This record gives sequence, structure tokens and C-alpha cells, in this order.
Amino acid sequence: MFPHRNEVFLMTQYVIDQMLEQVRESIRSQDQDVFRKLFLGWHENFQMQVIMQLYKHERMQLYDWLAANELAGVFQEMEYEDQFFTLKEMEAAQAAAVMNEVSADDAAAFIDKLPITARKESLLKAMDAKKADDVKEILSYPKETAGAIMTKEYLEIFSNQTIAEVMAFLRKTGQDVETIYYVYVVNEAGHLAGVVSLRDVIVHDNKTIIEEIMSTRVVYADDDLDQEDVAKIIQTYDLLAVPVVNKQKHLIGIVTVDDVMDVLEEEVTEDIGEISASKGSTDTNLSAFQAAKKRAPWIVLLMFLGLITANVIGRYEETLEAVVLLSVFIPLIMDSAGNTGTQSLAVVVRSLATGSYEKKGIAKMLRRELGTGFFMGLICAVVLVLTVSILYNHLLLAVIVAVSIFLTLSVAALIGAVLPLIINKLNIDPAVASGPFITTLNDIIGLFIYFTIATSFLEYL
Amino acid sequence: MFPHRNEVFLMTQYVIDQMLEQVRESIRSQDQDVFRKLFLGWHENFQMQVIMQLYKHERMQLYDWLAANELAGVFQEMEYEDQFFTLKEMEAAQAAAVMNEVSADDAAAFIDKLPITARKESLLKAMDAKKADDVKEILSYPKETAGAIMTKEYLEIFSNQTIAEVMAFLRKTGQDVETIYYVYVVNEAGHLAGVVSLRDVIVHDNKTIIEEIMSTRVVYADDDLDQEDVAKIIQTYDLLAVPVVNKQKHLIGIVTVDDVMDVLEEEVTEDIGEISASKGSTDTNLSAFQAAKKRAPWIVLLMFLGLITANVIGRYEETLEAVVLLSVFIPLIMDSAGNTGTQSLAVVVRSLATGSYEKKGIAKMLRRELGTGFFMGLICAVVLVLTVSILYNHLLLAVIVAVSIFLTLSVAALIGAVLPLIINKLNIDPAVASGPFITTLNDIIGLFIYFTIATSFLEYL
Repeated sequence: MFPHRNEVFLMTQYVIDQMLEQVRESIRSQDQDVFRKLFLGWHENFQMQVIMQLYKHERMQLYDWLAANELAGVFQEMEYEDQFFTLKEMEAAQAAAVMNEVSADDAAAFIDKLPITARKESLLKAMDAKKADDVKEILSYPKETAGAIMTKEYLEIFSNQTIAEVMAFLRKTGQDVETIYYVYVVNEAGHLAGVVSLRDVIVHDNKTIIEEIMSTRVVYADDDLDQEDVAKIIQTYDLLAVPVVNKQKHLIGIVTVDDVMDVLEEEVTEDIGEISASKGSTDTNLSAFQAAKKRAPWIVLLMFLGLITANVIGRYEETLEAVVLLSVFIPLIMDSAGNTGTQSLAVVVRSLATGSYEKKGIAKMLRRELGTGFFMGLICAVVLVLTVSILYNHLLLAVIVAVSIFLTLSVAALIGAVLPLIINKLNIDPAVASGPFITTLNDIIGLFIYFTIATSFLEYL
Repeated sequence: MFPHRNEVFLMTQYVIDQMLEQVRESIRSQDQDVFRKLFLGWHENFQMQVIMQLYKHERMQLYDWLAANELAGVFQEMEYEDQFFTLKEMEAAQAAAVMNEVSADDAAAFIDKLPITARKESLLKAMDAKKADDVKEILSYPKETAGAIMTKEYLEIFSNQTIAEVMAFLRKTGQDVETIYYVYVVNEAGHLAGVVSLRDVIVHDNKTIIEEIMSTRVVYADDDLDQEDVAKIIQTYDLLAVPVVNKQKHLIGIVTVDDVMDVLEEEVTEDIGEISASKGSTDTNLSAFQAAKKRAPWIVLLMFLGLITANVIGRYEETLEAVVLLSVFIPLIMDSAGNTGTQSLAVVVRSLATGSYEKKGIAKMLRRELGTGFFMGLICAVVLVLTVSILYNHLLLAVIVAVSIFLTLSVAALIGAVLPLIINKLNIDPAVASGPFITTLNDIIGLFIYFTIATSFLEYL
């Protein structure tokens, strides 16, 4: 988890500083040719980093020296805030021209984030009608579905075309699409009928008809498919892109592997946020106060749940007054219950994410978790009987603690697994099944078991 | 986190059942042609699923009907256990022939997992000398580095070749390599000198010399680069593959985007395992007993840490005897301390994984976490003073609890952030910085703060 950052990343900053100096030099000497030759030889990501470190008046010069499609390439590498300020620095006409060259998915993602509806509309209006329609189509899909993350820049051919025709088509349009490596075949009705990879196109001779070499068993994604499942399809079948079809099975877009990598990253952040009750606050761009505002509600809510635990202990105040030593083991019971539940939660979250849970079935998985809790409880109970009876020289107390741990761990493992599954089935916001909630629930159950047993043996303690 | 599994996955099982029936029919009627036409039209992942559901005698028939390279395609889709049993079912000569067709990275991953050294060696000996050397080279790299996950099937050309020559080369060798979409340019000394994408090749005319169109600013990975950084490079620059070079800057292999997706999945499982102290046990193929054996050591270890917490409470037994009500708030202090620390841990883990921590710098990040803890502590303290004084009608107790929470949360947020960073710097196994450890540490600190304050006000309570 804690990677060694190495030279690649250190070097990058050094390289960028050098690039920055070269760009500034070309601006000072007002030499557009030198600038273009230099700048356009770099990866767009480097271009973006250089542009963001320039002063505004330098950037204005570059807006003049670069074409709309070149600026669009840089724009696509930026984060939303930088995109916003860059477009604001440009004339309205240039901003629209750049947006026309940005791929439909990136344009949609940007416009979706604009805070003011009027601004969205005026930008869409200034764009080409065709591009604006593409963007609107993408925006019309519910968030995190295939339709919402697809792009419209893909290649479509007919099955009766020859390799020579397709090659001519690729030469003409190859620079404008997201990927040139898959070409999709549609029939007259616009239905997705097959796919040929550029590899297939290359290795066959010019006169071959597409129909003879196309693969008709195309893996595709329905437009309303969850983005996590789109990622899973690309991963399972080692694809570079997956076609998206609507209800009528018309080809309407593609999702490429680089977009899917971003989806995976997003989903992981979500998963970890849920395990740790820090959803939406792992963003390091937030200030301390903003982060506190996002995280505090969870802590306060959990604190109130903690008051329920306090209430459980309060009910056994008499028991505690009689034997204060019992309170010493409160943390031990709580920690063990919480940790066991969190482990089970992690197992379930990973099985849901990797899909292994469909393969096994719920019942089998729950049986396994109960079994795991049982065995772990057994191991811990044996360790505790020995340790506590030696440390505190009190065999009955040791047995009470051990039996409580055994029962608690068996239940805690099951709760940690069953709660997220129930919530998944019920379609409730899964955040309420996050680690700390399960921990608190298990705390309550564990302390209840512990004090019930202790109270019933009180006269012998 | 809890995706809606949809038709794609349900359909898959249905489709596979149908495919299975068709394959069985072709075996019953002993019709190799029908079988091949049918079977080879499917994606290798489907082929694999069908093969694994056949009976052994049916599979033996298919080993006869399929060529080594076709079997290799299926082999590459299997998990290790299935690969092992499949090769065991084949004659030794056929097994070696299949291994020769498996890509070097997959062959290396399989051979690496074989439990007996003699078996590794005999398999390598039976393979082509060239392929065996490639596999041995990959195996010679430390695990989780670029060298260990790279493959040797890539395309290498010289900068003085023409597009026409390169196209002829691609037509000839295109089917045998991992990706045909990037062609790497090396100079006479074997140094990586540039890259052309197939897109570039396609759009330029036949007489163009590679040198004129190749990109000389190639993003590459050093052979000892951490696999997570390799993934980051591919993700940052939206690549389909990244070339790997050795110390002498010779091109020695490539890592493709599909392998990187698997790396990301592996790393996420590791991250979540560490946050939840369930490292290596989220594999749902384990039996309950096996899972318990993997998870119990963590729980037992944490239980011993819990005994330290018990010891902290034990030291204040007199305070507790005087005011038993104090024990009621033990869970609340523990929960809040633990949850706040876990949140900070999640933030740091995500920043390390996404690389945003390099950009911001450690000091800034720690200041932010301390600030976040401070604000959250303030909010919780205000809520608690009100709640506790109303519920328990005891203002001083409420103030003691509130002040304790305020101090505890400020410290807990910092500890949750600083511990993983220190451990990252010191190169210790980061598992000791996992969620439950941080929680336990924060529990101890929180209870120490609480009882110290409570004891000093004991006479007024």
C-alpha cells in the first residue's frame, strides 16, 4: 500500500521545470515556430503541467499560438477547476471552438460540473449542434452508468466493405476518434453486428470483405449498466474498449480502457471511504475545516451510537460496582468484536467488487463467515483463559471473559458479513453498513454478552 | 461499492450452459470441424469456462482437436489451480508445446507458483530455449517490479525503416505479440529510441521513414520500478502499454494495460486488507478454518494490545470505584478516538495511492489532519456537553467528557495520519499501521486523557 516513489516522479518535476524555462524563452523571443515544435513534441499531460505553471499573460499568448484541437488535448488532461479557469481566460468563441474538439465524454463531464445552469446552456449553444447533441445525450443518462461515461468518437463501418475501404476510412478519420484499434460493424438498421480489431484489418489483404473476418460475438454493455460492471467486462475480456448499445440494440457509444481505469479508482475511493466512514472526505484538496465539516457528522452520529453502548454498561452499574475489575475488560471485548466485524466486512466488500460472491452464493459465504468467527472465537478463548488467569490470578473471571469472547466473535463475524449483504439487497445507501457502524453494533452485542454472563456469575466473583 | 449485478452476468451463465451443450453434442458425434468452427468463434474467457465444466474424458478429446496456440489462449484465462490440472492432464510433450505458445509473462507467473523446484526446471527444460530464457529473465526480477510483470512479446523496429516495411513486418508477426498497437524503435545499440503507434503508421503513407514520425519522448519504466508506479504511468499518460528498460536503457519488455488492471486490483485488495487487518484473507476460496487461521493471529495480537488498554483502566481502578458512572463513557471515548483515526488513515492511504501526497508535501498534509481533528473535536465537545448534561444531569461530568473528546480527537486524527507516513518512510512492513492498530493506539491515548482529567477532578465529582 505504501509505494516507493521513484525517479520517474522526481524526474518529472525536473523535466517540467526545464520545459517551463524553454517555453518562457520562446515567449520572450516571440517565436511561435520554436514554441510549437517544442511544445507539441511533449505528451499532453506534460503540456498541461507546463501551461498551469505559466503566468496568465504567458498563457494568453499560447491561446493565440495553439489551434483549438491542440488546446483541447491539453484541456482533457486538466482537473475541473483548471478547465474552468482556462476556458474563462479565453474569448467565448475560442472556448466554444476548443469544446468542439474535446471528446464528447470529457466535454459532458466538464459541463455536468458547471454550477450554473445558464452557463451550461450558453456553452452548449455556442458549440457545434452535432457535438452539443452528443454531450446532451451523455448527460441524459443517470450518473455512473455506461451511457454516462461513454464517448461518441468511435468508428462504424458496414459488413460489406472491403479492407481497402476500411483502411482508407481509418486514414481519413483515425486522428479524430478515441480509439482506432476497434472498428464496429453495424447493419442497415444501426444494430451492432460485429467488431474487427485493427490487428485483424492489418493482417488480412486488401480485397477481403469485413463480413468474412469480423467477430459476431461482440461483448457489449447496455446503456444503463453500472460503470463498475462496465469496468469488469473490460477487465474480464482484456478489451481496449467496449461498445455501448441502447434498448433497441443500436450502437450509441464506446467506453475505453483508460476511462475505466479512472472508474476503478473512483470506486476504490468509495469502498475505502465506506469501510472507514470517511466517504467523500479523502479528497486532499479540502481545507481542514471543509474536511472536518464532511467528517464530523459521521463521528457525531457514531458518538450517539456510542451513547447506546454507554447505556448498555449503565444497566449493569450494580454489577460493575460489585466488581470494578470487570470494567478492565471492556476495551478488550470491544476491540475484538469490532476488529472481527471489520475483517468480515472487508471480505464481503472485496467479494462484491471482484464478483466472486455471485459465483459462491450468499448462503455459502455466510456459513463460511460464521465458521470463521467460531474458529477464531475458539482460538482467542483458549489464549484468554491462560493469559487472564495468570495475569489476574482469577480463574472464574478468565472463563467469563473467554466465553464472552467466543460467543462475541462468532456473532461479530456473521454481522460483519450479513449487514452489507442485506443492505445491498434492500438498496439502501450502503454507507450505513460502513466499518464503524458494524464496529459499534458489535460493541453493543459484545458488551451485552459479557455483562449478562458476568452478572449471572456475580455471587461467585 | 455494492454494484447491481445485471443481465450481462446472469446471461453469461445461461450462454455458457448453451455452449456447453453444443460442445458436448459435437464430441458425442465426433465432429471436429463442427466443434472448431463453434468453439473458436468464442472469446477465450468463454472457451475457458466451457472447458472447465466438461468431464475429463471430454476435455481429453479437446486436447486432441485444438492446436497448441489455441490451447494456450484458453490456458491464459485460467486461474493457477485450473492451469495446473489442465497441464497435468496433457502428455508432457503437449504441455511443453502449449507453454511455448503462452505469453512469457503468463508462463512466468504460472511457473513461479509451481510448488516443486524440480517440476519448474523440467518444464522449463521441455520448452523452447528462447521462451525458457524469456521466462527465466522475468522470474529473475524481484516480485511486484516492472521486470517481474513485463512480457517479452513486443514489436521492435529500426528508425530507418519505411512504413511499408513496418506494415509488412506487422502483417507477419502481428498475431504473436501482446499488442500490435505500439511499435518500439531501437537504435543499433539496442537502446529505446522512440515509439510509433499503429495509428501513426496507418495515417502516413508507405514511403515515410519511421524516424520522421516517431515520438522520441517515450515514457518508459525502469525494470525495478514498483508495479504500482507502472500502473500509475499507464494511467497518467493513457497508454495501452509501457516499455520496460534495464540499467543500460536497453528495451527488454513491455507491460500492457490489461496486466496493469490486474495489478490495481491486487493493490486495492492489499490496501483494504491493511485498513481492516485482514491481509491475505479476503480470498473467498478459503475454507472457514483456513480463513480463521489467517485472520486469528491479527485478532489475538490486537487482543494483547487490548490488554494494554485494560492495564490503563486498571491503573485508575480507584477512580472508577469512587465514580462507577465514569466507566459508562469508556466506549464513547474509544469509539470516537478509533473512528477519527481510521478516517485519517483512509485519507492518507488514498493520497499515497493516488500520488496526491507528493504534490502537497507531508507537512501540509499533517497540519491539515491536525486541523481537521481540532475542528471535529470542537464540534463533538459542544454536542456532548449538551447531551451528557441533559441525559445524566451532571454538568461537571459532561465537561470532563467533552474536554476529553476534544483533546482525544485532535490527537487521534494526527496519529491516524502520521503513523502510516512514518512507517512508509522507515520501510517497515506497513501492516503494523493498519486500521485496528491505529484504533487501539488511539483507544489507549483517549482513555489515558479521559482518566487523567477525571482523576484530577475526582473530589468534585
